[in-house]
Amino acid sequence: MSLGLVFLSEVFGTAMLTLLGCGVVANVALKGTKGNNGGFLMVTWGWGIAVFAGVFVAARSGAHLNPAVTLGLLVNGKQEYAPGVPVDAASTFTYFGGEMLGAFLGAVVMWLAHKQHFDVEPEPASKLGVFSTGPAIRSTPWNLATEIIGTFVLVFVILTFGGTPSGLGPLAVALLVVGIGVSLGGPTGYAINPARDLGPRIAHALLPIKGKGSSDWSYSWIPVVGPLIGGTLAGLAGLLPIVFTAAT
Amino acid sequence: MSLGLVFLSEVFGTAMLTLLGCGVVANVALKGTKGNNGGFLMVTWGWGIAVFAGVFVAARSGAHLNPAVTLGLLVNGKQEYAPGVPVDAASTFTYFGGEMLGAFLGAVVMWLAHKQHFDVEPEPASKLGVFSTGPAIRSTPWNLATEIIGTFVLVFVILTFGGTPSGLGPLAVALLVVGIGVSLGGPTGYAINPARDLGPRIAHALLPIKGKGSSDWSYSWIPVVGPLIGGTLAGLAGLLPIVFTAAT
Amino acid sequence: MSLGLVFLSEVFGTAMLTLLGCGVVANVALKGTKGNNGGFLMVTWGWGIAVFAGVFVAARSGAHLNPAVTLGLLVNGKQEYAPGVPVDAASTFTYFGGEMLGAFLGAVVMWLAHKQHFDVEPEPASKLGVFSTGPAIRSTPWNLATEIIGTFVLVFVILTFGGTPSGLGPLAVALLVVGIGVSLGGPTGYAINPARDLGPRIAHALLPIKGKGSSDWSYSWIPVVGPLIGGTLAGLAGLLPIVFTAAT
Amino acid sequence: MSLGLVFLSEVFGTAMLTLLGCGVVANVALKGTKGNNGGFLMVTWGWGIAVFAGVFVAARSGAHLNPAVTLGLLVNGKQEYAPGVPVDAASTFTYFGGEMLGAFLGAVVMWLAHKQHFDVEPEPASKLGVFSTGPAIRSTPWNLATEIIGTFVLVFVILTFGGTPSGLGPLAVALLVVGIGVSLGGPTGYAINPARDLGPRIAHALLPIKGKGSSDWSYSWIPVVGPLIGGTLAGLAGLLPIVFTAAT
Repeated sequence: MSLGLVFLSEVFGTAMLTLLGCGVVANVALKGTKGNNGGFLMVTWGWGIAVFAGVFVAARSGAHLNPAVTLGLLVNGKQEYAPGVPVDAASTFTYFGGEMLGAFLGAVVMWLAHKQHFDVEPEPASKLGVFSTGPAIRSTPWNLATEIIGTFVLVFVILTFGGTPSGLGPLAVALLVVGIGVSLGGPTGYAINPARDLGPRIAHALLPIKGKGSSDWSYSWIPVVGPLIGGTLAGLAGLLPIVFTAAT
Repeated sequence: MSLGLVFLSEVFGTAMLTLLGCGVVANVALKGTKGNNGGFLMVTWGWGIAVFAGVFVAARSGAHLNPAVTLGLLVNGKQEYAPGVPVDAASTFTYFGGEMLGAFLGAVVMWLAHKQHFDVEPEPASKLGVFSTGPAIRSTPWNLATEIIGTFVLVFVILTFGGTPSGLGPLAVALLVVGIGVSLGGPTGYAINPARDLGPRIAHALLPIKGKGSSDWSYSWIPVVGPLIGGTLAGLAGLLPIVFTAAT
Repeated sequence: MSLGLVFLSEVFGTAMLTLLGCGVVANVALKGTKGNNGGFLMVTWGWGIAVFAGVFVAARSGAHLNPAVTLGLLVNGKQEYAPGVPVDAASTFTYFGGEMLGAFLGAVVMWLAHKQHFDVEPEPASKLGVFSTGPAIRSTPWNLATEIIGTFVLVFVILTFGGTPSGLGPLAVALLVVGIGVSLGGPTGYAINPARDLGPRIAHALLPIKGKGSSDWSYSWIPVVGPLIGGTLAGLAGLLPIVFTAAT
Repeated sequence: MSLGLVFLSEVFGTAMLTLLGCGVVANVALKGTKGNNGGFLMVTWGWGIAVFAGVFVAARSGAHLNPAVTLGLLVNGKQEYAPGVPVDAASTFTYFGGEMLGAFLGAVVMWLAHKQHFDVEPEPASKLGVFSTGPAIRSTPWNLATEIIGTFVLVFVILTFGGTPSGLGPLAVALLVVGIGVSLGGPTGYAINPARDLGPRIAHALLPIKGKGSSDWSYSWIPVVGPLIGGTLAGLAGLLPIVFTAAT
């Protein structure tokens, strides 16, 4: 499978992820929507099903949708990222690039779908919150810790899916993401994916969003670095003989 | 398989869809029901499971239940709409007709099941909202855009299901519909299906609903045209070699 | 398989059904519980998973758990109620008896599990509501209609499960019951099962529940007769060649 | 499979269980989190998916994650706890030890992920409630009864999973735990697992949690003894020929 197809597959899949994922936050957070104040559980189902849809769309490239997943597979020593896609520098950066571009594009379409509600929403912080995560209580070490832990859970459990064959397929990762959201999303809003956070943040910065405020660049590196550390640690932990992990 | 059976299968399946789908809105929106004010998440689960049940009922005809799905399969170049049902003008209009009649009939039975709550509900807009969608903020271009995007997601992801075999069957489309609801249903109430919106709207106009108001015909074309455009675009996008889509 | 085993299997399965099903209503409705005022969606998930658990427990006898299901299979002309259990008068009444006894016993255990919260709950109607259903607006014809429609959906869709093999197994019927709850449970609380309603109502009448009121016998026949009519109609509708139904 | 690997597998799996399970309570109960006051249904989904993730992680050792499950399998007369792990005293205590240590460690990581919210939360009882269960109304016999009934349902239904093959795998037990939560979690908060309750309680006692209060040791034996009794009774009930239970 060519790297061009890998790139496009990840672009489409990750765009689906942020279109639906940022979309549910728009529905809950922006003024006048039908799901306004719909609750945190609804947000987590929205993100879970966003992953579910993205996995189907990007099945051809293994549906990483997340640089932390790509990195976790890399340090775990996989031979292939997907059937016919060898693990090397070129493929790794192809995944990173497709994930970032897709996350950006999905956020743009999400904004179009909610254009009028962005226009009537008075609070700039709510608008940014639709695109990217922010901490409930700002603290570099603790916010990093929470993102590392959440992403570790994501990548580590994904690595174990191969050891327990089931008919669940994409549903397993969807439920896992719902679970990480409800259980570990309280302090930082669970980016657990550098592309999911940075791509939409760039969209927020570039788009002509009415009445928007800061894109909070001072925080922006935490949901990038934290997930990359968490994914790396999970890939290493998956090397332990303790748990079944997916065969190479 | 005869077109008569296709027609009846789609009638039964789409009736199940609007009976349960409009039913959950009735439960949330009408005065005095046990689920009154049950929240948007409950509405989206109701519609998701409505699709789930409808897919089982109309399995024989491929369970389109939605002209936008039929149209998406057509432009995608499928050879058959279901095993033994060739794609041609006669079968296409058979699907359209069955979907419309079923959506109408399901709404009638939904009304019977909630007859007393329609009688005591004072607000005409709430009664119409049980049958058909309406925009949170009225705007022809933006409402159209939202319906196009939502339906594109529906039909495009359905087309990719064939590339990722799983044991989920009808659950996959049910979850997808829940996801589109929570993530893209905020601005227009996610018709994403011309029959689902127009069939019940005709039922609203014809039934002797106590204290009913306008059927809002001025908006009625948007949840028809928007989904048809979205389904067409998804069918075309499914021709790209990027993603796995269901084999013809 | 002996009728004695069928009887015990249905007793255990239906007891699991009402233990968990009435339990979620106790959690939402009784004073001082941790899930107090947990919402209608939580109630519907509770009943859905109650069916899920009951189906596993009573798998050996086909897990009817509901006289309306037994009756629907009978009029549908099935040869067997479960592998090795022929359809005849003796087996039919064995199912009915096991379902009723199980529903009664499950409600007793549910009461024990929530004993203190029944003691502190001041409202007699809330106590009865944990055991049995009651109408939001009392009306013999309309309450009957709602129960007939809800049970028709239950039994008819179950009959179609055989036509769409999936890996979902008991999850399919669980989701269906969640869907009937959110979509058709608003007016009468969706008994959709004579045993589920009458068995716990008898338990309510016999148990020494502190401060209990009437068991509302004047309504009690509606959630018995309505579901039996709905199940019969569904069994007949399942004979139509329109839909795939489970092979005999 | 060596007992060392069994031990480590259960440590990892049960740590995943309490990390995510106690995590969702932290998100709902502690001041300032994004899911604050998210509702009881969200808590039950969090615990259900916590089990789901833990089952994948500990698949190699059969994923008991719970001394009541281990004990239920023992009295049920199983020959093996997992493929290649014979049932004997050494393996039994290996499971118990791994479950306890894992439950303790998961709670520690959960605390780290929510450190700042523990710091700002003023109420000591809320802090303990994140780690361990407590009764809504304190009563030794009735609290014990509720824990016995809840754990009986857990272990008994798990034993029947073997009789109904499905593609659900870990999802079946996840849904069962959601169901026990919503239906039987009202009076005592459904420990239904001695390790899940005692491990985090020890963590609560040892960790330097700011402003913490009592670890409520007077109640601590009930969520240990109740589940052990419930699991034992379920293991015995599973010997009845009434229901299909998993083949030895």
